Amino acid sequence: MTRQVSLSRWKQEVERALSTFNERSAMPSRLHDAMTYSLEAGGKRIRPALVYAVLETYGRPLSLGHEVAASLEMVHTYSLIHDDLPAMDDDDVRRGRPTNHRQFDEATAILAGDALLTDAFALLASTNTSPEKVVALVASFGRAAGSRGMVGGQLDDMLAEKQSGVPLETLQSIHERKTGALLVYALEAGAILADASESDREALKAFGQHLGIAFQIQDDILDVEGDEALIGKRVGSDEQNDKTTYPKLLGLDGAKAALDREVTMAEAELASLSVEAPLLRALLAFVVGRNH
Amino acid sequence: MTRQVSLSRWKQEVERALSTFNERSAMPSRLHDAMTYSLEAGGKRIRPALVYAVLETYGRPLSLGHEVAASLEMVHTYSLIHDDLPAMDDDDVRRGRPTNHRQFDEATAILAGDALLTDAFALLASTNTSPEKVVALVASFGRAAGSRGMVGGQLDDMLAEKQSGVPLETLQSIHERKTGALLVYALEAGAILADASESDREALKAFGQHLGIAFQIQDDILDVEGDEALIGKRVGSDEQNDKTTYPKLLGLDGAKAALDREVTMAEAELASLSVEAPLLRALLAFVVGRNH
Repeated sequence: MTRQVSLSRWKQEVERALSTFNERSAMPSRLHDAMTYSLEAGGKRIRPALVYAVLETYGRPLSLGHEVAASLEMVHTYSLIHDDLPAMDDDDVRRGRPTNHRQFDEATAILAGDALLTDAFALLASTNTSPEKVVALVASFGRAAGSRGMVGGQLDDMLAEKQSGVPLETLQSIHERKTGALLVYALEAGAILADASESDREALKAFGQHLGIAFQIQDDILDVEGDEALIGKRVGSDEQNDKTTYPKLLGLDGAKAALDREVTMAEAELASLSVEAPLLRALLAFVVGRNH
Repeated sequence: MTRQVSLSRWKQEVERALSTFNERSAMPSRLHDAMTYSLEAGGKRIRPALVYAVLETYGRPLSLGHEVAASLEMVHTYSLIHDDLPAMDDDDVRRGRPTNHRQFDEATAILAGDALLTDAFALLASTNTSPEKVVALVASFGRAAGSRGMVGGQLDDMLAEKQSGVPLETLQSIHERKTGALLVYALEAGAILADASESDREALKAFGQHLGIAFQIQDDILDVEGDEALIGKRVGSDEQNDKTTYPKLLGLDGAKAALDREVTMAEAELASLSVEAPLLRALLAFVVGRNH
Protein backbone atom coordinates (compact mmCIF):
# COMPACT_ATOMS: atom_id res chain seq x y z
CA MET A 1 0.00 0.00 0.00
CA THR A 2 1.32 3.43 -0.93
CA ARG A 3 0.76 4.97 2.46
CA GLN A 4 2.69 2.22 4.23
CA VAL A 5 5.59 2.80 1.86
CA SER A 6 5.58 6.54 2.50
CA LEU A 7 5.40 6.17 6.26
CA SER A 8 8.37 3.88 6.51
CA ARG A 9 10.32 6.01 4.03
CA TRP A 10 9.64 9.16 6.06
CA LYS A 11 10.60 7.31 9.23
CA GLN A 12 13.90 6.34 7.62
CA GLU A 13 14.49 9.90 6.46
CA VAL A 14 14.07 11.43 9.91
CA GLU A 15 16.05 8.67 11.59
CA ARG A 16 18.94 9.26 9.23
CA ALA A 17 18.66 13.01 9.83
CA LEU A 18 18.62 12.49 13.60
CA SER A 19 21.76 10.39 13.59
CA THR A 20 23.53 12.91 11.33
CA PHE A 21 22.57 15.90 13.43
CA ASN A 22 23.25 14.39 16.84
CA GLU A 23 26.96 13.81 16.60
CA ARG A 24 28.88 12.42 19.50
CA SER A 25 31.56 15.10 19.34
CA ALA A 26 32.08 17.74 22.00
CA MET A 27 29.52 16.45 24.46
CA PRO A 28 29.81 14.08 27.43
CA SER A 29 29.46 10.53 26.11
CA ARG A 30 26.99 9.65 28.85
CA LEU A 31 24.78 12.53 27.74
CA HIS A 32 25.03 11.45 24.12
CA ASP A 33 24.20 7.86 25.08
CA ALA A 34 21.11 8.94 27.02
CA MET A 35 19.85 11.26 24.28
CA THR A 36 20.45 8.63 21.60
CA TYR A 37 18.86 5.86 23.67
CA SER A 38 15.52 7.65 23.63
CA LEU A 39 15.82 9.13 20.14
CA GLU A 40 16.42 5.64 18.76
CA ALA A 41 13.61 4.03 20.74
CA GLY A 42 11.52 4.17 17.60
CA GLY A 43 7.95 5.26 17.66
CA LYS A 44 5.77 6.17 14.73
CA ARG A 45 7.54 9.45 13.90
CA ILE A 46 4.18 11.01 13.10
CA ARG A 47 5.34 14.60 13.53
CA PRO A 48 8.20 14.31 11.04
CA ALA A 49 5.87 12.41 8.69
CA LEU A 50 3.48 15.38 8.72
CA VAL A 51 6.28 17.76 7.77
CA TYR A 52 7.47 15.53 4.95
CA ALA A 53 3.91 14.86 3.76
CA VAL A 54 3.23 18.59 3.42
CA LEU A 55 6.48 19.08 1.49
CA GLU A 56 5.59 16.24 -0.91
CA THR A 57 2.07 17.60 -1.25
CA TYR A 58 3.53 20.85 -2.57
CA GLY A 59 6.18 19.11 -4.67
CA ARG A 60 9.10 20.26 -2.56
CA PRO A 61 12.17 18.12 -1.74
CA LEU A 62 12.14 16.22 1.55
CA SER A 63 15.66 17.47 2.29
CA LEU A 64 14.18 20.91 2.96
CA GLY A 65 12.43 19.48 6.03
CA HIS A 66 15.18 17.53 7.78
CA GLU A 67 16.00 20.13 10.45
CA VAL A 68 12.33 20.82 11.18
CA ALA A 69 11.49 17.11 11.30
CA ALA A 70 14.45 16.11 13.45
CA SER A 71 14.02 19.02 15.88
CA LEU A 72 10.34 18.11 16.27
CA GLU A 73 11.23 14.53 17.11
CA MET A 74 13.88 15.76 19.57
CA VAL A 75 11.33 17.89 21.40
CA HIS A 76 8.75 15.09 21.35
CA THR A 77 11.41 12.74 22.76
CA TYR A 78 12.46 15.15 25.53
CA SER A 79 8.81 15.47 26.56
CA LEU A 80 8.49 11.69 26.88
CA ILE A 81 11.68 11.44 28.95
CA HIS A 82 10.50 14.11 31.38
CA ASP A 83 6.93 12.76 31.50
CA ASP A 84 8.23 9.34 32.51
CA LEU A 85 10.23 10.68 35.49
CA PRO A 86 9.33 9.44 39.00
CA ALA A 87 8.00 12.89 39.96
CA MET A 88 5.72 12.87 36.90
CA ASP A 89 4.11 9.67 35.54
CA ASP A 90 6.74 7.41 37.15
CA ASP A 91 6.87 4.97 34.25
CA ASP A 92 9.43 2.18 34.10
CA VAL A 93 8.76 1.04 30.56
CA ARG A 94 8.37 2.93 27.30
CA ARG A 95 8.03 1.19 23.94
CA GLY A 96 8.92 -2.12 25.54
CA ARG A 97 12.24 -0.88 26.97
CA PRO A 98 13.28 0.66 30.30
CA THR A 99 12.50 4.37 30.42
CA ASN A 100 15.46 6.74 30.25
CA HIS A 101 15.78 7.26 34.00
CA ARG A 102 15.59 3.49 34.58
CA GLN A 103 18.26 2.79 31.97
CA PHE A 104 20.51 5.65 33.14
CA ASP A 105 19.51 7.60 36.24
CA GLU A 106 17.14 10.43 37.09
CA ALA A 107 19.69 13.25 36.86
CA THR A 108 20.93 12.02 33.49
CA ALA A 109 17.36 11.73 32.22
CA ILE A 110 16.53 15.28 33.29
CA LEU A 111 19.66 16.59 31.55
CA ALA A 112 19.16 14.46 28.43
CA GLY A 113 15.69 15.99 28.12
CA ASP A 114 17.03 19.50 28.67
CA ALA A 115 19.75 18.94 26.07
CA LEU A 116 17.35 17.55 23.46
CA LEU A 117 15.04 20.53 23.92
CA THR A 118 17.87 23.07 23.69
CA ASP A 119 19.72 21.39 20.82
CA ALA A 120 16.45 21.22 18.89
CA PHE A 121 16.34 25.02 18.69
CA ALA A 122 19.99 25.24 17.64
CA LEU A 123 19.27 22.68 14.93
CA LEU A 124 16.14 24.45 13.75
CA ALA A 125 18.12 27.69 13.45
CA SER A 126 20.42 25.95 10.96
CA THR A 127 17.56 25.23 8.51
CA ASN A 128 18.67 26.07 4.99
CA THR A 129 15.89 28.50 4.04
CA SER A 130 15.37 32.26 4.27
CA PRO A 131 16.11 33.88 7.67
CA GLU A 132 12.52 35.22 7.72
CA LYS A 133 11.21 31.66 7.55
CA VAL A 134 13.63 30.40 10.17
CA VAL A 135 12.48 33.11 12.57
CA ALA A 136 8.84 32.20 11.91
CA LEU A 137 9.63 28.54 12.55
CA VAL A 138 11.47 29.20 15.83
CA ALA A 139 8.72 31.50 17.10
CA SER A 140 5.99 29.02 16.25
CA PHE A 141 7.93 26.03 17.63
CA GLY A 142 8.60 27.85 20.90
CA ARG A 143 4.95 28.79 21.31
CA ALA A 144 3.74 25.27 20.51
CA ALA A 145 6.13 23.57 22.91
CA GLY A 146 6.14 26.10 25.78
CA SER A 147 4.01 27.29 28.66
CA ARG A 148 1.03 28.08 26.42
CA GLY A 149 1.38 24.84 24.49
CA MET A 150 2.78 21.42 25.32
CA VAL A 151 4.26 22.14 28.76
CA GLY A 152 1.11 23.95 29.89
CA GLY A 153 -1.00 21.02 28.69
CA GLN A 154 1.20 18.60 30.57
CA LEU A 155 0.85 20.56 33.80
CA ASP A 156 -2.93 20.77 33.47
CA ASP A 157 -3.02 17.06 32.68
CA MET A 158 -1.11 16.37 35.88
CA LEU A 159 -3.54 18.50 37.90
CA ALA A 160 -6.53 16.85 36.19
CA GLU A 161 -5.27 13.39 37.12
CA LYS A 162 -5.71 14.31 40.76
CA GLN A 163 -9.36 15.20 40.18
CA SER A 164 -12.23 12.92 39.34
CA GLY A 165 -14.81 14.21 36.93
CA VAL A 166 -12.86 16.39 34.51
CA PRO A 167 -15.31 17.95 32.03
CA LEU A 168 -14.99 17.32 28.29
CA GLU A 169 -13.95 20.94 27.66
CA THR A 170 -10.98 20.66 30.00
CA LEU A 171 -9.99 17.30 28.55
CA GLN A 172 -10.07 18.81 25.06
CA SER A 173 -8.04 21.86 26.12
CA ILE A 174 -5.40 19.63 27.71
CA HIS A 175 -5.03 17.48 24.61
CA GLU A 176 -5.01 20.46 22.27
CA ARG A 177 -1.93 21.70 24.07
CA LYS A 178 -0.25 18.51 25.28
CA THR A 179 -0.28 16.64 21.98
CA GLY A 180 -2.16 18.84 19.52
CA ALA A 181 0.13 21.87 19.57
CA LEU A 182 3.15 20.04 18.17
CA LEU A 183 1.04 18.32 15.50
CA VAL A 184 -0.39 21.67 14.41
CA TYR A 185 3.12 23.12 14.39
CA ALA A 186 4.37 20.22 12.23
CA LEU A 187 1.78 21.10 9.60
CA GLU A 188 2.38 24.83 9.89
CA ALA A 189 6.13 24.32 9.61
CA GLY A 190 5.65 22.22 6.49
CA ALA A 191 3.45 24.96 5.05
CA ILE A 192 6.04 27.64 5.85
CA LEU A 193 8.83 25.63 4.23
CA ALA A 194 6.69 24.81 1.19
CA ASP A 195 5.59 28.42 0.63
CA ALA A 196 1.93 27.44 0.92
CA SER A 197 -0.58 30.29 0.61
CA GLU A 198 -1.95 31.92 3.75
CA SER A 199 -5.30 30.18 3.32
CA ASP A 200 -3.68 26.77 2.76
CA ARG A 201 -1.57 27.35 5.85
CA GLU A 202 -4.66 28.03 7.97
CA ALA A 203 -6.43 24.98 6.55
CA LEU A 204 -3.41 22.81 7.32
CA LYS A 205 -3.34 24.08 10.89
CA ALA A 206 -7.07 23.37 11.28
CA PHE A 207 -6.46 19.90 9.81
CA GLY A 208 -3.77 19.46 12.45
CA GLN A 209 -6.16 20.39 15.24
CA HIS A 210 -8.73 17.79 14.18
CA LEU A 211 -6.00 15.24 13.58
CA GLY A 212 -4.68 15.88 17.09
CA ILE A 213 -8.03 15.28 18.74
CA ALA A 214 -8.64 12.22 16.56
CA PHE A 215 -5.20 10.94 17.56
CA GLN A 216 -6.03 11.29 21.24
CA ILE A 217 -9.48 9.71 21.00
CA GLN A 218 -7.93 6.78 19.15
CA ASP A 219 -5.27 6.50 21.89
CA ASP A 220 -7.98 6.34 24.53
CA ILE A 221 -9.96 3.76 22.52
CA LEU A 222 -6.83 1.62 22.09
CA ASP A 223 -6.32 1.69 25.84
CA VAL A 224 -9.77 0.10 26.19
CA GLU A 225 -9.71 -2.42 23.38
CA GLY A 226 -6.18 -2.55 21.97
CA ASP A 227 -3.63 -5.34 21.89
CA GLU A 228 -1.02 -5.00 24.67
CA ALA A 229 1.73 -6.56 22.60
CA LEU A 230 1.24 -3.98 19.86
CA ILE A 231 0.75 -0.93 22.10
CA GLY A 232 3.74 -1.75 24.29
CA LYS A 233 1.92 -0.91 27.53
CA ARG A 234 -0.82 -2.41 29.62
CA VAL A 235 -4.36 -2.18 28.23
CA GLY A 236 -6.85 -0.75 30.70
CA SER A 237 -4.21 1.35 32.44
CA ASP A 238 -6.27 4.53 32.00
CA GLU A 239 -9.25 3.02 33.80
CA GLN A 240 -7.02 1.57 36.47
CA ASN A 241 -5.47 5.01 36.99
CA ASP A 242 -8.94 6.54 37.07
CA LYS A 243 -7.90 8.74 34.17
CA THR A 244 -10.49 10.88 32.41
CA THR A 245 -10.71 9.72 28.80
CA TYR A 246 -13.06 10.14 25.86
CA PRO A 247 -14.55 6.64 26.33
CA LYS A 248 -15.10 7.40 30.01
CA LEU A 249 -16.89 10.70 29.28
CA LEU A 250 -18.74 9.64 26.13
CA GLY A 251 -18.86 5.84 26.33
CA LEU A 252 -16.98 3.70 23.83
CA ASP A 253 -19.55 4.22 21.06
CA GLY A 254 -19.73 7.93 21.80
CA ALA A 255 -15.95 8.16 21.57
CA LYS A 256 -16.01 6.38 18.22
CA ALA A 257 -18.67 8.78 16.95
CA ALA A 258 -16.57 11.75 18.13
CA LEU A 259 -13.59 10.26 16.32
CA ASP A 260 -15.63 10.03 13.10
CA ARG A 261 -16.67 13.67 13.43
CA GLU A 262 -13.07 14.82 13.83
CA VAL A 263 -12.03 12.77 10.80
CA THR A 264 -14.82 14.31 8.70
CA MET A 265 -13.78 17.82 9.71
CA ALA A 266 -10.12 17.05 9.07
CA GLU A 267 -10.98 15.76 5.59
CA ALA A 268 -13.00 18.90 4.87
CA GLU A 269 -9.93 21.02 5.64
CA LEU A 270 -7.85 18.95 3.23
CA ALA A 271 -10.55 19.30 0.56
CA SER A 272 -10.30 23.10 0.91
CA LEU A 273 -6.60 23.16 -0.02
CA SER A 274 -5.43 24.56 -3.37
CA VAL A 275 -3.73 21.22 -4.07
CA GLU A 276 -4.66 17.54 -3.89
CA ALA A 277 -3.46 16.01 -0.64
CA PRO A 278 -3.60 12.21 -0.87
CA LEU A 279 -0.59 11.77 1.42
CA LEU A 280 -2.15 13.79 4.23
CA ARG A 281 -5.39 11.90 3.76
CA ALA A 282 -3.45 8.65 4.07
CA LEU A 283 -1.72 9.89 7.22
CA LEU A 284 -5.09 10.74 8.74
CA ALA A 285 -6.36 7.28 7.86
CA PHE A 286 -3.27 5.78 9.44
CA VAL A 287 -3.71 7.72 12.67
CA VAL A 288 -7.31 6.66 13.15
CA GLY A 289 -6.82 3.16 11.76
CA ARG A 290 -3.68 2.29 13.73
CA ASN A 291 -3.72 -0.54 16.23
CA HIS A 292 -0.81 0.74 18.35
CA MET B 1 29.70 55.09 42.10
CA THR B 2 28.83 54.92 38.42
CA ARG B 3 29.10 51.18 38.13
CA GLN B 4 26.75 50.61 41.05
CA VAL B 5 24.23 52.89 39.39
CA SER B 6 24.50 51.05 36.08
CA LEU B 7 24.16 47.63 37.66
CA SER B 8 21.00 48.42 39.53
CA ARG B 9 19.56 50.21 36.48
CA TRP B 10 20.25 47.20 34.23
CA LYS B 11 18.76 44.92 36.89
CA GLN B 12 15.62 47.05 36.87
CA GLU B 13 15.50 47.03 33.08
CA VAL B 14 15.62 43.25 32.79
CA GLU B 15 13.20 42.75 35.67
CA ARG B 16 10.70 45.05 34.01
CA ALA B 17 11.23 43.22 30.71
CA LEU B 18 10.75 39.84 32.39
CA SER B 19 7.47 40.84 33.95
CA THR B 20 6.22 42.29 30.67
CA PHE B 21 7.17 39.25 28.61
CA ASN B 22 5.94 36.61 31.03
CA GLU B 23 2.27 37.35 31.04
CA ARG B 24 -0.13 35.25 33.02
CA SER B 25 -2.51 34.77 30.12
CA ALA B 26 -3.12 31.45 28.38
CA MET B 27 -1.02 29.34 30.71
CA PRO B 28 -1.91 27.34 33.83
CA SER B 29 -1.71 29.73 36.80
CA ARG B 30 0.29 27.21 38.81
CA LEU B 31 2.87 27.11 36.03
CA HIS B 32 2.99 30.90 35.86
CA ASP B 33 3.36 31.08 39.65
CA ALA B 34 6.26 28.62 39.65
CA MET B 35 8.05 30.34 36.75
CA THR B 36 7.57 33.77 38.31
CA TYR B 37 8.63 32.59 41.77
CA SER B 38 12.09 31.74 40.50
CA LEU B 39 12.37 34.55 37.96
CA GLU B 40 11.65 37.05 40.73
CA ALA B 41 14.02 35.46 43.22
CA GLY B 42 16.50 38.18 42.37
CA GLY B 43 20.12 37.44 41.80
CA LYS B 44 22.72 39.68 40.32
CA ARG B 45 21.37 39.57 36.73
CA ILE B 46 24.94 39.51 35.45
CA ARG B 47 24.08 38.01 32.05
CA PRO B 48 21.53 40.73 31.18
CA ALA B 49 23.96 43.35 32.52
CA LEU B 50 26.59 42.12 30.05
CA VAL B 51 24.15 42.48 27.14
CA TYR B 52 23.13 45.99 28.18
CA ALA B 53 26.73 46.99 28.90
CA VAL B 54 27.79 46.03 25.37
CA LEU B 55 24.88 47.98 23.89
CA GLU B 56 25.79 51.08 25.91
CA THR B 57 29.44 50.63 24.98
CA TYR B 58 28.47 50.94 21.32
CA GLY B 59 25.96 53.73 21.95
CA ARG B 60 22.90 51.61 21.16
CA PRO B 61 19.59 51.83 23.04
CA LEU B 62 19.01 49.35 25.88
CA SER B 63 15.57 48.56 24.49
CA LEU B 64 17.25 46.67 21.66
CA GLY B 65 18.45 44.11 24.20
CA HIS B 66 15.34 43.35 26.24
CA GLU B 67 14.44 40.06 24.52
CA VAL B 68 18.03 38.81 24.59
CA ALA B 69 18.50 39.87 28.22
CA ALA B 70 15.21 38.42 29.44
CA SER B 71 15.60 35.14 27.55
CA LEU B 72 19.10 34.75 28.99
CA GLU B 73 17.78 35.21 32.50
CA MET B 74 14.97 32.74 31.79
CA VAL B 75 17.46 30.08 30.69
CA HIS B 76 19.75 30.81 33.63
CA THR B 77 16.73 30.50 35.95
CA TYR B 78 15.56 27.21 34.43
CA SER B 79 19.07 25.80 34.92
CA LEU B 80 18.99 26.73 38.62
CA ILE B 81 15.55 25.14 39.09
CA HIS B 82 16.65 21.87 37.50
CA ASP B 83 20.05 21.89 39.27
CA ASP B 84 18.32 22.18 42.64
CA LEU B 85 16.09 19.11 42.06
CA PRO B 86 16.42 16.15 44.44
CA ALA B 87 17.93 13.99 41.69
CA MET B 88 20.55 16.66 41.00
CA ASP B 89 22.04 18.84 43.79
CA ASP B 90 19.05 18.30 46.11
CA ASP B 91 19.06 21.85 47.46
CA ASP B 92 16.31 23.14 49.72
CA VAL B 93 17.31 26.78 49.75
CA ARG B 94 18.28 29.18 46.98
CA ARG B 95 18.88 32.87 47.61
CA GLY B 96 17.48 32.54 51.11
CA ARG B 97 14.13 31.10 49.99
CA PRO B 98 12.85 27.55 49.46
CA THR B 99 13.93 26.16 46.08
CA ASN B 100 11.25 25.80 43.44
CA HIS B 101 10.48 22.12 44.11
CA ARG B 102 10.27 22.82 47.86
CA GLN B 103 7.91 25.73 47.36
CA PHE B 104 5.76 23.89 44.76
CA ASP B 105 6.55 20.26 44.03
CA GLU B 106 9.03 18.32 41.95
CA ALA B 107 6.82 17.84 38.90
CA THR B 108 5.91 21.52 38.82
CA ALA B 109 9.58 22.49 39.16
CA ILE B 110 10.58 20.24 36.25
CA LEU B 111 7.82 21.73 34.08
CA ALA B 112 8.52 25.31 35.15
CA GLY B 113 12.12 24.78 34.05
CA ASP B 114 11.04 23.24 30.75
CA ALA B 115 8.64 26.12 30.12
CA LEU B 116 11.22 28.81 30.91
CA LEU B 117 13.70 27.19 28.53
CA THR B 118 11.18 26.84 25.72
CA ASP B 119 9.56 30.25 26.16
CA ALA B 120 13.03 31.82 26.12
CA PHE B 121 13.49 30.75 22.51
CA ALA B 122 10.05 31.99 21.50
CA LEU B 123 10.86 35.32 23.14
CA LEU B 124 14.28 35.56 21.49
CA ALA B 125 12.65 34.95 18.11
CA SER B 126 10.53 38.07 18.66
CA THR B 127 13.60 40.36 18.92
CA ASN B 128 13.04 43.47 16.87
CA THR B 129 16.09 43.33 14.64
CA SER B 130 16.94 41.83 11.24
CA PRO B 131 15.93 38.18 10.71
CA GLU B 132 19.58 37.36 9.92
CA LYS B 133 20.58 38.56 13.37
CA VAL B 134 17.73 36.73 15.09
CA VAL B 135 18.81 33.48 13.45
CA ALA B 136 22.41 34.07 14.55
CA LEU B 137 21.21 34.76 18.11
CA VAL B 138 19.05 31.62 18.28
CA ALA B 139 21.82 29.41 16.87
CA SER B 140 24.38 30.79 19.29
CA PHE B 141 22.02 30.65 22.29
CA GLY B 142 21.11 27.04 21.53
CA ARG B 143 24.76 26.02 21.22
CA ALA B 144 25.73 27.81 24.44
CA ALA B 145 22.90 26.32 26.50
CA GLY B 146 22.76 22.80 25.02
CA SER B 147 24.62 19.49 25.10
CA ARG B 148 27.92 21.06 24.02
CA GLY B 149 27.50 24.00 26.39
CA MET B 150 25.72 24.47 29.70
CA VAL B 151 23.88 21.13 29.93
CA GLY B 152 27.00 19.18 28.98
CA GLY B 153 28.99 21.08 31.61
CA GLN B 154 26.35 20.32 34.21
CA LEU B 155 26.47 16.60 33.44
CA ASP B 156 30.26 16.50 33.63
CA ASP B 157 30.11 18.46 36.88
CA MET B 158 27.76 15.85 38.30
CA LEU B 159 30.10 13.03 37.24
CA ALA B 160 33.11 14.92 38.62
CA GLU B 161 31.44 15.29 42.02
CA LYS B 162 31.50 11.51 42.34
CA GLN B 163 35.25 11.43 41.77
CA SER B 164 38.00 12.67 44.01
CA GLY B 165 40.98 14.30 42.37
CA VAL B 166 39.55 16.04 39.33
CA PRO B 167 42.43 17.65 37.38
CA LEU B 168 42.52 21.40 36.76
CA GLU B 169 41.90 20.90 33.02
CA THR B 170 38.64 19.06 33.65
CA LEU B 171 37.54 21.61 36.23
CA GLN B 172 38.21 24.40 33.73
CA SER B 173 36.35 22.59 30.93
CA ILE B 174 33.33 22.07 33.19
CA HIS B 175 33.15 25.72 34.19
CA GLU B 176 33.73 26.94 30.63
CA ARG B 177 30.57 25.11 29.65
CA LYS B 178 28.46 25.19 32.82
CA THR B 179 28.73 28.90 33.54
CA GLY B 180 31.10 30.31 30.92
CA ALA B 181 29.11 29.48 27.79
CA LEU B 182 26.12 31.68 28.71
CA LEU B 183 28.41 34.55 29.75
CA VAL B 184 30.27 34.36 26.43
CA TYR B 185 26.93 34.21 24.61
CA ALA B 186 25.70 37.31 26.49
CA LEU B 187 28.67 39.26 25.17
CA GLU B 188 28.39 37.81 21.67
CA ALA B 189 24.67 38.59 21.58
CA GLY B 190 25.35 42.16 22.64
CA ALA B 191 27.96 42.41 19.87
CA ILE B 192 25.53 41.02 17.27
CA LEU B 193 22.80 43.46 18.30
CA ALA B 194 25.23 46.39 18.38
CA ASP B 195 26.73 45.62 14.95
CA ALA B 196 30.21 45.34 16.43
CA SER B 197 33.00 44.47 13.99
CA GLU B 198 34.11 40.86 13.62
CA SER B 199 37.31 41.54 15.55
CA ASP B 200 35.46 43.32 18.37
CA ARG B 201 33.04 40.42 18.53
CA GLU B 202 35.87 37.92 18.96
CA ALA B 203 37.54 40.12 21.61
CA LEU B 204 34.24 40.37 23.50
CA LYS B 205 33.84 36.59 23.43
CA ALA B 206 37.41 36.14 24.69
CA PHE B 207 36.68 38.71 27.40
CA GLY B 208 33.64 36.62 28.32
CA GLN B 209 35.75 33.48 28.62
CA HIS B 210 38.17 35.09 31.06
CA LEU B 211 35.31 36.74 32.92
CA GLY B 212 33.62 33.35 33.26
CA ILE B 213 36.66 31.68 34.77
CA ALA B 214 37.27 34.69 37.04
CA PHE B 215 33.62 34.48 38.12
CA GLN B 216 34.01 30.83 39.07
CA ILE B 217 37.30 31.26 40.90
CA GLN B 218 35.74 34.09 42.89
CA ASP B 219 32.74 31.86 43.68
CA ASP B 220 35.07 29.19 45.01
CA ILE B 221 37.03 31.73 47.05
CA LEU B 222 33.80 33.12 48.53
CA ASP B 223 32.84 29.61 49.59
CA VAL B 224 36.04 29.50 51.64
CA GLU B 225 36.15 32.98 53.11
CA GLY B 226 32.83 34.67 52.31
CA ASP B 227 30.06 35.92 54.59
CA GLU B 228 27.16 33.43 54.83
CA ALA B 229 24.57 36.13 55.30
CA LEU B 230 25.62 37.81 52.06
CA ILE B 231 26.09 34.65 49.95
CA GLY B 232 22.79 33.12 51.07
CA LYS B 233 24.27 29.64 51.53
CA ARG B 234 26.58 27.93 53.96
CA VAL B 235 30.27 28.83 53.74
CA GLY B 236 32.55 25.80 53.48
CA SER B 237 29.90 23.71 51.72
CA ASP B 238 32.28 22.90 48.86
CA GLU B 239 34.86 21.43 51.21
CA GLN B 240 32.20 19.57 53.15
CA ASN B 241 30.89 18.11 49.89
CA ASP B 242 34.46 17.23 48.90
CA LYS B 243 34.01 19.33 45.79
CA THR B 244 36.97 20.05 43.54
CA THR B 245 37.54 23.81 43.53
CA TYR B 246 40.27 26.22 42.50
CA PRO B 247 41.35 26.77 46.13
CA LYS B 248 41.51 23.02 46.64
CA LEU B 249 43.67 22.47 43.55
CA LEU B 250 45.80 25.61 43.78
CA GLY B 251 45.55 26.66 47.42
CA LEU B 252 43.83 29.89 48.42
CA ASP B 253 46.77 32.08 47.38
CA GLY B 254 47.18 30.15 44.15
CA ALA B 255 43.49 30.65 43.38
CA LYS B 256 43.81 34.37 44.01
CA ALA B 257 46.82 34.52 41.68
CA ALA B 258 44.87 32.65 38.99
CA LEU B 259 42.02 35.10 39.44
CA ASP B 260 44.43 38.01 38.90
CA ARG B 261 45.74 36.41 35.71
CA GLU B 262 42.24 36.01 34.31
CA VAL B 263 41.42 39.62 35.14
CA THR B 264 44.58 40.82 33.38
CA MET B 265 43.72 38.82 30.27
CA ALA B 266 40.12 40.01 30.32
CA GLU B 267 41.31 43.63 30.55
CA ALA B 268 43.67 43.08 27.62
CA GLU B 269 40.74 41.95 25.48
CA LEU B 270 38.81 45.08 26.39
CA ALA B 271 41.84 47.22 25.56
CA SER B 272 41.89 45.68 22.08
CA LEU B 273 38.36 46.87 21.25
CA SER B 274 37.76 49.65 18.72
CA VAL B 275 35.85 51.56 21.42
CA GLU B 276 36.43 52.52 25.05
CA ALA B 277 34.66 50.08 27.38
CA PRO B 278 34.51 51.54 30.91
CA LEU B 279 31.21 49.79 31.65
CA LEU B 280 32.56 46.35 30.83
CA ARG B 281 35.66 47.12 32.87
CA ALA B 282 33.40 48.08 35.78
CA LEU B 283 31.41 44.85 35.39
CA LEU B 284 34.60 42.83 35.51
CA ALA B 285 35.67 44.70 38.64
CA PHE B 286 32.26 43.98 40.14
CA VAL B 287 32.48 40.26 39.41
CA VAL B 288 35.88 39.84 41.00
CA GLY B 289 35.25 42.34 43.79
CA ARG B 290 31.82 41.06 44.85
CA ASN B 291 31.30 39.64 48.31
CA HIS B 292 28.25 37.50 47.41
